[in-house]
Amino acid sequence: MLPDPDTREKLVETLRVVLGDDSVLVDPTDRAPYEQGARQDHGRAAFVMRPKDNAALRTCVSLCAQAAQQFVVQSGNTGLVGASIPNQTGDVAVLSLDRLREPPQIDVENNSVTVSAGTRLSEINQALAPHGLTLPIDLGADPMVGGMIGANTGGARFIQHRDMRNFVLGLDVVLKNPGAQVLSLGSALHKNNTGPDLKHLFIGSGDRFGIVTSANLRVVAAPQQRAAALLVPRDEDAVLPLLLAYERRAGPLLSAFEFMSPNAMQAALDHVPGLQNPFSGDTPQIVLLVELSRPNVPADWETDLDDILQAVTAEIWETDDEPLLDALFGKPEKMWHIRHAVSEGVKHAGELFAFDLAFRRQDVMAFRKDMLTALPAQFPGVMICDFGHVGDGGLHFNLVRTDACTLPRDGFETTLRDWVMQQAVDRFGGSFSAEHGIGPKNQRYFDQYTPRMVRNLLIEIEETLYDAKECK
Amino acid sequence: MLPDPDTREKLVETLRVVLGDDSVLVDPTDRAPYEQGARQDHGRAAFVMRPKDNAALRTCVSLCAQAAQQFVVQSGNTGLVGASIPNQTGDVAVLSLDRLREPPQIDVENNSVTVSAGTRLSEINQALAPHGLTLPIDLGADPMVGGMIGANTGGARFIQHRDMRNFVLGLDVVLKNPGAQVLSLGSALHKNNTGPDLKHLFIGSGDRFGIVTSANLRVVAAPQQRAAALLVPRDEDAVLPLLLAYERRAGPLLSAFEFMSPNAMQAALDHVPGLQNPFSGDTPQIVLLVELSRPNVPADWETDLDDILQAVTAEIWETDDEPLLDALFGKPEKMWHIRHAVSEGVKHAGELFAFDLAFRRQDVMAFRKDMLTALPAQFPGVMICDFGHVGDGGLHFNLVRTDACTLPRDGFETTLRDWVMQQAVDRFGGSFSAEHGIGPKNQRYFDQYTPRMVRNLLIEIEETLYDAKECK
Repeated sequence: MLPDPDTREKLVETLRVVLGDDSVLVDPTDRAPYEQGARQDHGRAAFVMRPKDNAALRTCVSLCAQAAQQFVVQSGNTGLVGASIPNQTGDVAVLSLDRLREPPQIDVENNSVTVSAGTRLSEINQALAPHGLTLPIDLGADPMVGGMIGANTGGARFIQHRDMRNFVLGLDVVLKNPGAQVLSLGSALHKNNTGPDLKHLFIGSGDRFGIVTSANLRVVAAPQQRAAALLVPRDEDAVLPLLLAYERRAGPLLSAFEFMSPNAMQAALDHVPGLQNPFSGDTPQIVLLVELSRPNVPADWETDLDDILQAVTAEIWETDDEPLLDALFGKPEKMWHIRHAVSEGVKHAGELFAFDLAFRRQDVMAFRKDMLTALPAQFPGVMICDFGHVGDGGLHFNLVRTDACTLPRDGFETTLRDWVMQQAVDRFGGSFSAEHGIGPKNQRYFDQYTPRMVRNLLIEIEETLYDAKECK
Repeated sequence: MLPDPDTREKLVETLRVVLGDDSVLVDPTDRAPYEQGARQDHGRAAFVMRPKDNAALRTCVSLCAQAAQQFVVQSGNTGLVGASIPNQTGDVAVLSLDRLREPPQIDVENNSVTVSAGTRLSEINQALAPHGLTLPIDLGADPMVGGMIGANTGGARFIQHRDMRNFVLGLDVVLKNPGAQVLSLGSALHKNNTGPDLKHLFIGSGDRFGIVTSANLRVVAAPQQRAAALLVPRDEDAVLPLLLAYERRAGPLLSAFEFMSPNAMQAALDHVPGLQNPFSGDTPQIVLLVELSRPNVPADWETDLDDILQAVTAEIWETDDEPLLDALFGKPEKMWHIRHAVSEGVKHAGELFAFDLAFRRQDVMAFRKDMLTALPAQFPGVMICDFGHVGDGGLHFNLVRTDACTLPRDGFETTLRDWVMQQAVDRFGGSFSAEHGIGPKNQRYFDQYTPRMVRNLLIEIEETLYDAKECK
């Protein structure tokens, strides 16, 4: 059900009067930044609402619900599944959280921070830094809190800190109904087992059940020392034993274990200016980035973190199955520069089809090896440029359609995506969305791989929340 | 609605025929162990069901639902809120999970284990030990998985590993309705952001929404080295700065930070045979237990963990505000023996009223100090014997009614509990259940402190799950 044009005009007029002109954007130029997604995605918005506080946001939600005006919630707009931009129809509005930006309230003693949905990750960490604290979610992008909670972001240090869910102590959410009621779920308490914990309904659920407007987040002591190495494993089969070896020896100090394929390395070398292959040889090999980290330690705690990483690596080097061909130690920033260059390089490698997959950890390389033969057989001329957070089973399985591919373009993407998902999910028991969440881009696979009973339950929970009544 | 006696007799008869005589206990002697809770709680069961597998459990659930026979779910029966035993009426049955004990299936490479609801924590860790892995939930009791998930257990190493929720990757749950449908939510994947994550509805919710029959749990590299110290802080005000000091220096190695009050120490000395005050002086002082832990490290990683703890402590000792009066280093087992003796001693200190509270971390000692004067004014002759996991804001606030208390016994417990909860929750913004969950013992405070709108939503979600339809 869409509002007729008269209703929409009246709705916009009412919003302007109640919230002020600057809170409602209708001019195409003003709307444009809210219509462009992080990659090529683009939509068209009926109008854009930019409430300046929670009360204004509730007004937007309430008036839209009364007018049956659909909207998407947009925070940092850095997501990769198209969830934060409207579709092409021009019938859907945008509700932007970018003005919900109360300064982070840091509770140093409690290791927690209260943040608004429109606050960026970098802003939180800038505010925390003087206190020696950090929100250790490490992402390529700089999202806002609302989206981080909606997508339950993971990132490159998941192996040590897990995902956003692990940091949400409490949140305030506005229900998407005419009452626009506020639910306050949880608080700044670290321990609070007082019955079913409904806040988890709103984490990793996009804006399906409600709009998170603020949150209490747990934070941790910021690492003051890092040591990193680039490793060349013997082959794919050595990757998992290496992961286990580092994990068993370095334990809680192990903060990253990243994988870069030869093609992904080549894409970085080809497209990132000034980058050089850190290892000798013309052809890049598989490269792993391993990182240890710890906070400031007293002077008497003598062993340097670099020495620890070298000692651990030396011991692993000596193991019988000879898992390592090469290892390079250096400044962590240098190592991460190469890892980030890979993300960047792949984007420019050609016509890209990105998959954000996850597997049991032993299946990551098994899947990759399988694909090295199975994919070219099905899709000749399609190149695998994968990299990922293999320490937690994540694999950014990027495919590039090269000029050598002669398959018809019509229906190519859907056929390719369906086939890859079938291999990853049906054959290998993997996840069709490791950390990017659900949006228009994954809706098809959500529908396909979520049991109907679960989908029905979600619909009923959505209806229950829509029908919620305020009560004293 | 209760089944009439005829219906119940027929139900028991049907269960016996379908499941076998040994699966249904009606004899009082057979029932007795299932009617006795972990502390003084005692109930009377209509009968006890002990399904031998998931199919039998579904039969129990289905037949009970059809006959409107109420039951409580019991797994390890170690909980402290009365949630796993029937009430006194004799109308409620017990559904025991103690025969759901498939051997743990360990996935060493994936750092995960598949376990049945009736498996004990100790059994999981025995199975994991040869692989250098552990489920690092550290509890005084030895519960079964079903109860650990239902209560979302925390424990003494929460500061490093957090709660059970943080380890559940996937679970199977049987809905409590005539269809007794099975929901499989999640799997062994560490990363899996494929939409709303319904498994969290069943974690920390007791058996309200369904019965967890098995789970995929994340596990971690087992610590092979531990170092511990007992500290005497200057006073209550030094506890938080000490916690922050250790946290900022030892970071991920800090695995416990426990508090023992002088009265709790005295109770341990009085009631645990052979225990001696580790510090000089006749009167015990506040004692903290601090522990670092890490896995096996290579020989070249020279610094011993004991040396690190001593170095960290020495540096803290020197700080300007002189937070430490004394420190004692020794074998971790010895240190933990004293900590566990405190739990034990308090149980024998007299007529005990136990509260499992949590606060923002800076409020733990503030609350305690406040109570030292406010409590005796309201309840003369009631002694505070508290200890707890102050690193995460948890406080086992134990009160002992001594002989000096002349208050009337009639209504004493309710008056005392209501008053303490009022102080903890209303005045200090704390939690009335840090880690023990909700059961008959906390129902009153759940009703009082949970917003009515949230309680209504929970009822509707319960009804939605009850009405769930199987669909293909």
